[in-house]
Order: sequence, then structure tokens, then C-alpha cells
Amino acid sequence: MANVATRESWSGRPEEEGAAAAAAAAAAAATAAAERTPLLNGAGTPRRFSSSLLFRIGQLSTVDLGDENQELETELATMVVKEIPHTENLLSLKYESLDYDNSENQLFLEEERRINHAAFRTVEVTRWVICGLIGILTGLIACFIDIMVEQLALVKYQVIKSNIDKFTEKGGLSFSLLLWASLNAVIVMIGSLIVAFIEPVAAGSGIPQIKCFLNGVKIPHVVRLKTLVVKVCGVILSVVGGLAVGKEGPMIHSGAVVAAGISQGRSTSLKKDFKIFEYFRRDTEKRDFVSAGAAAGVSAAFGAPVGGVLFSLEEGASFWNQLLTWRIFFASMISTFTLNFVLSIYNRKPGDLTSPGLINFGRFDTDENSYKYFELPIFIGMGAVGGMLGALFNALNNWLTVFRIRYVHRRCLQVIEAMLVAAVTATIAFVLIYSSSDCQPLREVSGEYMLQLFCPDGQYNAMASAFFTTPESSVRRLFHDPAGSFNPQTLGLFTLLYFFLACWTYGLTVSAGVFIPSLLLGAAWGRLFGILITKLSTATIAWADPGKYALMGAAAQLGGIVRMTLSLTVIMVEATGNVTYGFPIMLVLITAKIVGDIFVEGLYDLHIKLQSVPFLHWEAPVTSHSLTAKEVLSSPVTWLHRREKVGIIVDILSDTRTNHNGFPVVENNSGEPPRLCGLILRSQLIVLLKHKVFVERENMSPSLRRLKLKDFRDAYPRFPPIQSIHVSQDERECLMDLSEFMNPTPYTVPQEASLPRVFKLFRALGLRHLVVVNSHNRVVGLVTRKDLARYRIGKNGLEELCLAQT
Amino acid sequence: MANVATRESWSGRPEEEGAAAAAAAAAAAATAAAERTPLLNGAGTPRRFSSSLLFRIGQLSTVDLGDENQELETELATMVVKEIPHTENLLSLKYESLDYDNSENQLFLEEERRINHAAFRTVEVTRWVICGLIGILTGLIACFIDIMVEQLALVKYQVIKSNIDKFTEKGGLSFSLLLWASLNAVIVMIGSLIVAFIEPVAAGSGIPQIKCFLNGVKIPHVVRLKTLVVKVCGVILSVVGGLAVGKEGPMIHSGAVVAAGISQGRSTSLKKDFKIFEYFRRDTEKRDFVSAGAAAGVSAAFGAPVGGVLFSLEEGASFWNQLLTWRIFFASMISTFTLNFVLSIYNRKPGDLTSPGLINFGRFDTDENSYKYFELPIFIGMGAVGGMLGALFNALNNWLTVFRIRYVHRRCLQVIEAMLVAAVTATIAFVLIYSSSDCQPLREVSGEYMLQLFCPDGQYNAMASAFFTTPESSVRRLFHDPAGSFNPQTLGLFTLLYFFLACWTYGLTVSAGVFIPSLLLGAAWGRLFGILITKLSTATIAWADPGKYALMGAAAQLGGIVRMTLSLTVIMVEATGNVTYGFPIMLVLITAKIVGDIFVEGLYDLHIKLQSVPFLHWEAPVTSHSLTAKEVLSSPVTWLHRREKVGIIVDILSDTRTNHNGFPVVENNSGEPPRLCGLILRSQLIVLLKHKVFVERENMSPSLRRLKLKDFRDAYPRFPPIQSIHVSQDERECLMDLSEFMNPTPYTVPQEASLPRVFKLFRALGLRHLVVVNSHNRVVGLVTRKDLARYRIGKNGLEELCLAQT
Repeated sequence: MANVATRESWSGRPEEEGAAAAAAAAAAAATAAAERTPLLNGAGTPRRFSSSLLFRIGQLSTVDLGDENQELETELATMVVKEIPHTENLLSLKYESLDYDNSENQLFLEEERRINHAAFRTVEVTRWVICGLIGILTGLIACFIDIMVEQLALVKYQVIKSNIDKFTEKGGLSFSLLLWASLNAVIVMIGSLIVAFIEPVAAGSGIPQIKCFLNGVKIPHVVRLKTLVVKVCGVILSVVGGLAVGKEGPMIHSGAVVAAGISQGRSTSLKKDFKIFEYFRRDTEKRDFVSAGAAAGVSAAFGAPVGGVLFSLEEGASFWNQLLTWRIFFASMISTFTLNFVLSIYNRKPGDLTSPGLINFGRFDTDENSYKYFELPIFIGMGAVGGMLGALFNALNNWLTVFRIRYVHRRCLQVIEAMLVAAVTATIAFVLIYSSSDCQPLREVSGEYMLQLFCPDGQYNAMASAFFTTPESSVRRLFHDPAGSFNPQTLGLFTLLYFFLACWTYGLTVSAGVFIPSLLLGAAWGRLFGILITKLSTATIAWADPGKYALMGAAAQLGGIVRMTLSLTVIMVEATGNVTYGFPIMLVLITAKIVGDIFVEGLYDLHIKLQSVPFLHWEAPVTSHSLTAKEVLSSPVTWLHRREKVGIIVDILSDTRTNHNGFPVVENNSGEPPRLCGLILRSQLIVLLKHKVFVERENMSPSLRRLKLKDFRDAYPRFPPIQSIHVSQDERECLMDLSEFMNPTPYTVPQEASLPRVFKLFRALGLRHLVVVNSHNRVVGLVTRKDLARYRIGKNGLEELCLAQT
Repeated sequence: MANVATRESWSGRPEEEGAAAAAAAAAAAATAAAERTPLLNGAGTPRRFSSSLLFRIGQLSTVDLGDENQELETELATMVVKEIPHTENLLSLKYESLDYDNSENQLFLEEERRINHAAFRTVEVTRWVICGLIGILTGLIACFIDIMVEQLALVKYQVIKSNIDKFTEKGGLSFSLLLWASLNAVIVMIGSLIVAFIEPVAAGSGIPQIKCFLNGVKIPHVVRLKTLVVKVCGVILSVVGGLAVGKEGPMIHSGAVVAAGISQGRSTSLKKDFKIFEYFRRDTEKRDFVSAGAAAGVSAAFGAPVGGVLFSLEEGASFWNQLLTWRIFFASMISTFTLNFVLSIYNRKPGDLTSPGLINFGRFDTDENSYKYFELPIFIGMGAVGGMLGALFNALNNWLTVFRIRYVHRRCLQVIEAMLVAAVTATIAFVLIYSSSDCQPLREVSGEYMLQLFCPDGQYNAMASAFFTTPESSVRRLFHDPAGSFNPQTLGLFTLLYFFLACWTYGLTVSAGVFIPSLLLGAAWGRLFGILITKLSTATIAWADPGKYALMGAAAQLGGIVRMTLSLTVIMVEATGNVTYGFPIMLVLITAKIVGDIFVEGLYDLHIKLQSVPFLHWEAPVTSHSLTAKEVLSSPVTWLHRREKVGIIVDILSDTRTNHNGFPVVENNSGEPPRLCGLILRSQLIVLLKHKVFVERENMSPSLRRLKLKDFRDAYPRFPPIQSIHVSQDERECLMDLSEFMNPTPYTVPQEASLPRVFKLFRALGLRHLVVVNSHNRVVGLVTRKDLARYRIGKNGLEELCLAQT
């Protein structure tokens, strides 16, 4: 259930990203920068936010800095110089952006021009094949998780059940409690250990991380093979360990990893390159496949292929492309079909179509008068309750997460917390079951683990049926058991305790999702609500089927917590297998969203915010028209000449104070001020340096073999750090001709453009760097994701977040 | 069923658009242009395609024209000088673009900066209210259509039935035929007359037009009140007139008109301004509401709110925005709810939930083994058949439409053709019924008009049940009647004849849709297919329910004709009220699309192409990387100075040879070459001229009252033609200061940018004009919609369409 455990779990281990090595080279770089500075047109006048936490060198051109900034600067400098405690008003500088804009340099254009129409068709067919593979593999992973959970849970519950049955008669049930609690704690410990020590980014459901990835933020390690393995094992162990978690959310992350892996035709971790799909080795293509993977994950989790497509689009896509949508849809379809096919064979019912997803809500009646018009206001009321409960859940969890970030950041502490939660969950369940006197007659239903306990023969303990099973089957039972199966006290107590348990569980260092606990919680109070309605009225009310209210409650609670409307509606409709309830579900979800949004954001957004990720929303803040590109840009920028000295390039790349990733390329024509003529990325420069594409003098062509696009693709996505490239003193004096490799037509905006305008361009095209120019096409600055993400609407209107390296 | 009857029906009446008036001023403009030309830096050297059909004046800067163009030019000039017969390789210049990019001039920014956060919230709430209103009104219109059709059809069929019953015994059924045929012809005549003579753009389903509108093409009259009235009356008359048409498609158009009307808070036709919603009086906002309206239309037509949202997104939206999606969803929900509510009261079953849409497929069984895995290949095969039949349908209709454009362009001919089709439809139906010997025992089903004819008592004529009713109930009967209700010969003959009838009908000058005929056609051959499967096998096949095959056939045929995959899947699933068939329906639709696309495009795309609309697809042609902005741009452009002489502006606007709509504004600083400093639209200039915002000398501020954004909004969208504005000789000598009104930060691309790059920017941001600049920020040209739309992939790779004024 833990989506994002700690700051650390997101960042992965920074030493692998070259940061440590980079630090080592800091001294050298400092000298280099000192050399570079005069070249850069005078020492840089620091702009706002120029504290020790912000790194900008040199200054290029005529950014006129008003004096009103001086005051602000001083104020901010004092504010950010001291170690920053974790607040929400922070934007981390450590996250890199993905680049969804193709660098259309000469190499790329030559390749594209060489490819004829038939070859493009082959590429398109390959895309479909990859999507098919993504669907199949995602479906198989879902099957694996499902079967493992079922088998292990069967063993676990049988052991405990036989133990309880034994001690119920003999007395000494405290042994059973001990067995149950310690069994859970041990299972969860293993799950938590692998997450905490092997791959922290596998914690939680992974949905916020995939949201960020699709938004264009590079979360380290998020789509690696190791993450997938840890995630799959972790989720099995958390669910079997009896935590209040679901196995559905992690499927989305799993699908995304599968997609990223297959589409690249190689595994960097396994050092295996299949030499296929090389055309897709860039962020643009990878993103598209990751969308498909996420959709396939949703599809396998809920048996909701259309819901999966909508999820991907709602959360990820900015530019809707019809062809892409069809491929995503195809992957989704294949995924749910694979799952259904394998599970039907596993369940020895080949040809059965009833398990399209991991969760199956069971079939709702489709009698024509399934709900009445006058029930709609009741549903809307439930939506409002769900919105409020969801907001409470999110607020509590937010507070808890801040606490965890501050105090529970050591790995062993995280594991201990997870074990504690597992033990407490078992204890609470046990005490509830033990003290419950709600006995119900035994019926022939699918729940396998009916505890008799102190009930008379032929009856079972109703509380146990809510706790002593996987959450999925609890949900199904709340939806479908006939009226009278649960008594109100049981449901009320369960709701109350489960609320706090689920809230505590989300954010642990285990890999698990929040969908099922939300549904279970909602189903419980929804059913309670349905029972109360029947009780309030004196006459027997035929329409007040508690199962129906359980469904609405589940929708309301889930909507109140995660706040996805359109995709969630379709997911719920597809999972219930019934469109009749579509309309009330929509109403409930929209109400829950509107009510919830009044208080606090959705859970995923809260966690993204707590991680200080520079996430770009759909639109710029509404009141941001007063800001212009000139005010938001990062300036001064470091630029390069079209023919640049190798030494200078190495020094700039080595400068740990800047860490710039994009460099405008300028042209100096006979005394004229330099004009923008291109944009080159750090990764491209690294490849150029590695292959030593140098010319020794001006006007001499490169002596070495011509670099091809393949060289760049082979290095993607883990480009070596600059420190690993040795450049001799002689080579430092050589020149590098960037003309062929830079993007000669970067997108630009004039410096007077308003923030919403800049934002729109940046977001719609998925850019990483947007060059701001003046009316003479001279570079004024560079707008990056962080420059846009730091503005948001706060309580007092437009707020600006602080930027920090933490 | 006629989507787009003729070229004329699309263009509306050009004289209203000022074209006629413009022609009158041609002489004056010619003189003006002669004056302007030297000012524009020398006489323009015509670029490629510069024939008498292309109008470009002057030349601004350094577009270097290679000599290789000369040859091409001559060749093309000879090709296009003669009158162009209608071909597909033509792009019309007469369609204007909508402007989805806000002109962020000083007035706009001042307004936005004045609005605080609370006010923006009010705007947002207003948007939701408008969406609610759109939903309610669209639902009510759907109810009106439904009730009118039902009532009128009841009367008509009762008259004919009693007549047939009478003459069956007496003999002399030819009188019945005559009655039926002439009744239909008269009804259709009225429907056709109002369309042909009052509002030709109301012909057809309106889906291609709405697609174009959302794509950014301004189709004259398409969202006017008059169009709505004609459309609603027209569709009622066509359906009652017995044509092979449906009433669903036009709902999408109706919803769009409702949305465009409500969101503007006024009706220009009725000359009534409610002074509300003034903030939304621009293309950007209007487009969003039209999306919502189209979705509400789909939702009302099929009872498919999610399908409606997807339709809008699949067909229209380029930039997916979450908030917008929710509003669209809200409008859809309200629309289907309103329809259901009103119809349930009309049917005297208040609280009934069974009519969420105009078409109701009836409820399919939800038994768990509704289909078997081995049926999936059969379904895929049906999808392929549907794709091929759809392609045949489209190809035939394409040929027919070309014929109509060439020869049936007179209005009275169009009306006569519609009458002819109506009479032929009745005759064919009559002959089929007459000669059919397929008698089935009478059962208690919903079809009200069971003809006994020559069948024994207690039986009815099966052929009559397919023809002698509205197509909607025929579809329902094919889906749900038990096995054996139709015999194969009946179905085969019906399929064959109905195929040609439907194909002939689509494109008539009546307002009607193609969804229902496609479904009916598919249901007929699908059911036939199901029956044949049962017959082929010797054993009784329990699974081969012909109704199921009818459903798959309907999906296949519809998919093969219109080729929308994702939205159509959801629409079908929502309309059947059953998600079990979701997966096979998806398979069928994807197969139908893939197979169909091999042969010919979808019906709507074909019609858009035949109208030579500059429609922008999702991506640039794949092999277009070899083209750069420099090669695709319209050049030379006409530019204006920041302070420009009124006389020059009037002359440029009056020049009918150019008809430019956007003018880059340049700045001349002391001898430097002019640099781009803004972009101003024709409509803005018109408003400025109308309000006479002149200054008499340099350095003098305007003497008149300050223009406000409201003045521009009041004139939107029907800006007066330039000829209606009188400018005296004195005023011609004045200057106009454009600084405040131009967009100071237009999007630009460097001239070296590749076509896909330009395309991406243009399409993602919904631009109308994209300024191409060189490295010194000087204007090289302007890229408009037509410059991008004219490239497409043909049989021999990249093709370039001709541009023409027709």
C-alpha cells in the first residue's frame, strides 16, 4: 500500500547516477569555470534565487535586472541558505527531465530521409508487435502475482485456521494470535527488506512514479528490470502478509517496466542487447510504450481495457494521438485476454470468461429497475461523504508521510515499521473477531476461510469474513452477500479501524497499492449506509439492496482518495460488468472529487508534491499572466559556439555547480552579437567526447570515422558521466564542430511571452529546454521544467516554490 | 443519411460571407496593390504554384529561390490555369481557419491580470453551468426528435397498413404501393426542400463538419441556429419518409450547435444578446464547448456518455486537458439523463431507466459463457468481412459523391433525387414484402407494425418486419428475435438490396445519419452468418445464437464504414448495456478498421477529402522530413509596420487577390532590416478601422476613446467585411498604432525546421498562422493550415495537392 515511502526511495541510489563521481571533480571544475567566466561576457550577475543552492554561471546578454529584485534576493538568500526542513513549498532540483522532443539534428534528418514509406510501415508494424508483447507479458505477470498470492494465502490461512480451530475448544487463543501476528510480520519483513535494501523505488503502488514519468520527469531506476522483480515479489509478500493493501496498483508500474524493457530490445542490467527495436531508443518512443504498458497494467488489474487506455491518457498523455491510442488499446486488450486465458486454465475452467482482471467485483444484477431516480440524491450524498472521508484520509496520510520523511528515513527503521503494522493489523483483526458476537448462518459462497470460532455449529463469525481473507474477497462479499449477512455494529467498527489501518499502511516501505483498501473501506461504510436506510424506514424497502450501496460507497471512497474521474468510472463499470450503474457511479465519483478537492488534493498528487517533483499540471496557474518568459527563465545560461574548444566543453560539463543539460549553440559572425543557431544536450556532448569527434584546427574536417545515430542510441539511456571520459591536454586544445549534432531548430519564445503561453508550448510539446530569445534572436535564457513547475496557486494567490538540491 | 451532399451544401451561401461584396471592390484593390508592391521590397517573384489561382503579393525578404523551381512552376502553371475538374488532389482555399491560439495582446493581458483568483473560479463555475445547460438542451432536442418520429411514423404506418390490409383481400395492392411510395416521396421532399433551399450545410449527419470544426476549419454556417432548426426538422422528415437513414448522427451536430449557441450567450441570427458569457466569445473557448456539445449529442443518441467523451476526443481534441474532459463528461451525463427522464415520463413509466439513448439495442443476456474462445477467430473473420464490405460501401459512395458534385449541383435536382430515392425505397420494400413467402408465427414483441399480408392467420410476413418499421426497431429485432425468426433467403436478399439503397441514400440533400443503416446492414448479414454456421454443422450448436452474430456483424459493418475504434467500442458496449461483449466487439472493430484501411479511407474522411477541406491529420506524413519550413511556407507575406498608414491597411484588406487573414507586424529601427515584432489578424484590423482608432501624426496618441476587449468580442464571430467600412481620404493619411492590439509574441519557427516539426507545433497548439523567421528574426513567410494540409502520402510517396479557389 505504500506508494512513496521516503524521499530516498524515490531517488534510488544517487551514487549510480554519477553524482558521487561528479563531486570528486568539483575542484577541477571550479578552476575551469573561473576560466570560462570572462569568456561568458563578464561575471554573472546572480538573479533571484541565486543562493548557494542554485548554480548558474556566466551571463550572456541583456537581461535587465530591476533593482526590486535585490531586496527579494537578500530575503530569499537568508531563507534558503540554512538547511531546509522538509516543506511542501520546495521543488527539488535533483530530478531530470525526459526529452519528448526529438533532437532533429542532421544525423536524425538524414536517417529519416533515407527511410522510405515501406520502411516506415515496418516501423509501425513493429510498434504493434511490441504492444502485443507488452500486453502478453503484463498479463502473465498479473497471473503470476495472482496465483502466488492465492497459493501462499491458502497455506497461511489454513495454518492459522487449524490453529484457531484447535485452540478455540482447548482455550489459549493467545497462541493463535501470536502465530498469526508473527507469521504476518515475518512475511512482511521479507517484502519490506527487499524493497528497502534492493530497490527503494519499488515501494508503494508506483502510480505516482509512472504519472511523473509520463509527465516527463525522470525518476531514477523507475523502469528497470530490478525494480520489476522487487515489485512483483514485494507485492506478493505484502498481500500474503495480511497488510491492508491491494495488488492492483503495482500492476500499473509492472506494465510500465515491461513496456520500457521490451521496447528497447535490450536489458542494460543484464548487459544483453538483442539488437532489435533500435529505432525506439529515445525518450519519445519509450514514453509511448510506457503509456501502453501502464494501460495494460490497469487492464490486467481490473479487467478494464478501455479504463486502462483512459487511465494512461488521463494521467499521462498531453498530446492525444489517434494511432498511439489504438496501440495502447491493443496492448490493453491483449493483456486482459492473456490474464483471462491463463487463469481460466489454472482454474480448470478453460473457456471461462469470468476472470478478466485480478479483481473481480462479481456480477451485479441487471434487472431493469436497478436503481430509482430518488436514489440519485442519496448517491450524491454518499459521494460527498466519500469526498470528505477521502480528504481526511489524504490529510492524515500527508501528515504521516512528512513525519516519515523526517524521522523514519533509516532503512532498518522502515522495515521495523512495516513489521509493526503487519503485527498490529493481525492483532486488531484477531481482537475484533474474538470479541465479535455477530454469527451468521453458514452458506455456500466462494470465501474459503470461514471461521466458526465461538459461533454455534452451522454458523460463522461475520467479522472474520471481513478480516480473515484477502481484501479482494472481502470486497466481493460486501457487494454480493444477501441483506442481513453483516450487522451494523460489525461494519461500523470495521470501517473505523480499517480506516486508520489503511491510512497507516499507505506509505510503508513495501510495494502495494491503495485501490483495494479504499474500495473495501468504502464498501463497508456503504453497506452500513444501506442497512441504516432500510432500518430508518418502517416499511420494507425493496430497493435498498445493501450490495448496491456498498458499490456506491466503494466508488465514493476510492474517488475521494485518488480523484480520477473519467478513467475510474470506466474501470468501475468494466469491473462490475454492468453499465446500468454507470450513471450513478459517475455522479458519485464527480461529487467525491469536487468535495474532496475543496479540502486537499488527491493522494497521488500529495505524494508527488511531498517528493518535490517538478510536476507540470495541465495548465499554468490561472493568475500567472502577469509573469513573462523573461521573469521565469533560468539565466544566465551557458552557451557554446558552433565550433567550440574541447577543453571548454569538458570544463562546462564537469562543473558540478551547474549540471546544465542543454546548451544553446550560438554563432558569432564578424562582430555581430551572437545569435542562436541550435541546441545541444549534455548527453550528445558526452557521446561526442567519448568518440573523440575533434578537429585539430579551424576549417578542418573530423579525422575520425563519422558518428552515426546508432552511437547515440547505443549509449541511451545511461550516458556515462563526464568524469569517465579521459581527455588529454592536447585534445583539450582541439575544436569540436557541433553543427551536425546540435538540434538546429530548437523551439524558442520571445522574452515578452506570458507564462501561460510559455507553459502551453512547453507542455503541449513535451519539451525539456525552451530557449528564450530577444527580438534579435539572441539567447536571453532557457526555460526548463523547474522554472515552470515552481509557480502554483496557493492560499494567497500565485506562489513561488523554493528550489533546492535536496 | 446524407452526410455531405455537395460542395455547395458545405460552403453555405458565399454571398453572405462577404465574397460577393469583396468581388465588387476588386478593381479598387488592384490599384491599391500596385501601389503597395514597390513598398513591399520589389515586385514579388512568384514561387511554386504561383498561378492565377494563387494570390500572393509583394515579397519581403531573402527567400532564396533556386532555379530548379522555375521548371516546376511552368509545368504547374499550365496544369492549373485551366478550369480544374473536381479531383481528390485539390485543396480548397476558401475555407478559413479557426484560431485556437489566444491573441495575447496588451488588452487581453491587462484583462487577465485584472482578474483575480476568485473571479477565475467564477469563470470555471460558469463553464460547468454552461456544460449542464448544453446537456439539458441536447437531451431535450433528442427527445423532441424521438417523439416526433415515433408519432409521425405511427400515423404513416397505420395509414399504409390499413390500406394494405384492405387491398390484400380485395386485390389491387398496386394502390397501396402507390400510396406508400408517394407518401414517402412527399415527406422526403419537404425534408429535402428545407435543407436544399434554407440551409444546405444541414445536409448529412454533420459529423464530418463537426470533425472539421474541431480540427480548426471554419465551415460557414455550421453552428448557427438556423442550421439547428433545419437539421432537426430535416432528420424527422427523412426518418419518417422511410429513407435508409438514422436519427443518431445528426444529434452530434445538433449538440454542437446548441453548445456554440449557449456558450456565446447570444444569437446573432435572432439579434439577441443576453450580455452573459462574454468571456467565452473567442474560438478557443467556443471549441471547448462545441466538443462538449458533440459529446452530449453522442451521449443522447446512443445512451453512451463515456463513448461521447471519447468521440469528442478521438475526433476533435488535439491537446487533452483533464479539466476540459471532466466538463465534457458532465455535459454527456446530463444529456443522457435528461433524455431518459423525459422519455420515461412520455412512455408513462417514470423512474424507468431503459431509454438512455435514442437507439436502444435492448439487453443482451449476461450468462457467463456468452461466447467461447474458439468463436473469437470467427468474430475476427466477420470483422474482416465488415472491413471489406465497408470499403466497398465507401468506394461506391465516393464515386457517387463525385458524380453528384459534378452533375447534381442544382438544388431542384437534389430535391428530385431525394424524392426518387424515397419512392424507390418504398417500392423495393413493397416488392420484397410482396414476393416474400417467409411467414413467421406472430409473437408478442415490441414491433408494432406486423403485416400479415398473405400469411395465414396468426403469422406475419418476416420481410415486412425488416422493412415496414423504423430502422432502429429492425436492428433490435435482428439482435433479439429468437433463432428461426428470419430465414436465410430473406436476410440475404435484404442485405443485398439494403446495401445499395443505403449507399445511394448517403449523400442525398437530406439531413440524416449513417450509423443506423450501417448497423442494420451489418446485423442482417451477421445474423445470416450466424444461421449459416448453425446449418453447416450437423450437430445442434448451443453457442451459435444468431442475435450475437447480428451484433458482431453490426459492429463490423459500422466499423468498416466509419472506422472509429475506441469510441465506437465504448458506444457499442454502452448501447448494449453489457461489457461481456466488449472484448469481441473491440476485436471486430480493430479488424474491420485494419482491413478497411487497406482499400480506402473511412466514409467521413472521404467526404472531407472530396470537399477539399484543409484537414490536418494527427501527424505529418512520415516521409516529409525532407521538406523544411522554407519550402512549405506561403511567401511572400504581406507585413505591416507597427505604425501603419490607414490607407495602406485598407488597401491590403480590400485586395481580393490575397485575402490574407494574418499579418506579421515588423519594426524598422534606424536602418536595420525589419524584424518581427507581432502578428495581427484581419478581424482585429477590421474592428480597429471600424472604431477609427487612428492617430493623425507620428508620436500622437489616439484621440478617440480607448478600445476595449469587449469591442472585439462584440464583433465576434461575424466581423464585417472591409467594404462596409467607410474610410475618408483624410483618414487614409492617418496612422494606426498596432502595438496594443497585435499579438506581440506569435509562435515562430526557424526556416530550416522540418515539416514534421512545424506540423507538430501547428497542430498541438491549434494555430492559424505560424511565422517563419530567419536567424535574424526577420519574417520569411507564414505557414498556414493549407500549407501543411497539402502534403499527404499517396501511392508514389509524398504527394502535394493543388490549391484552388473552388
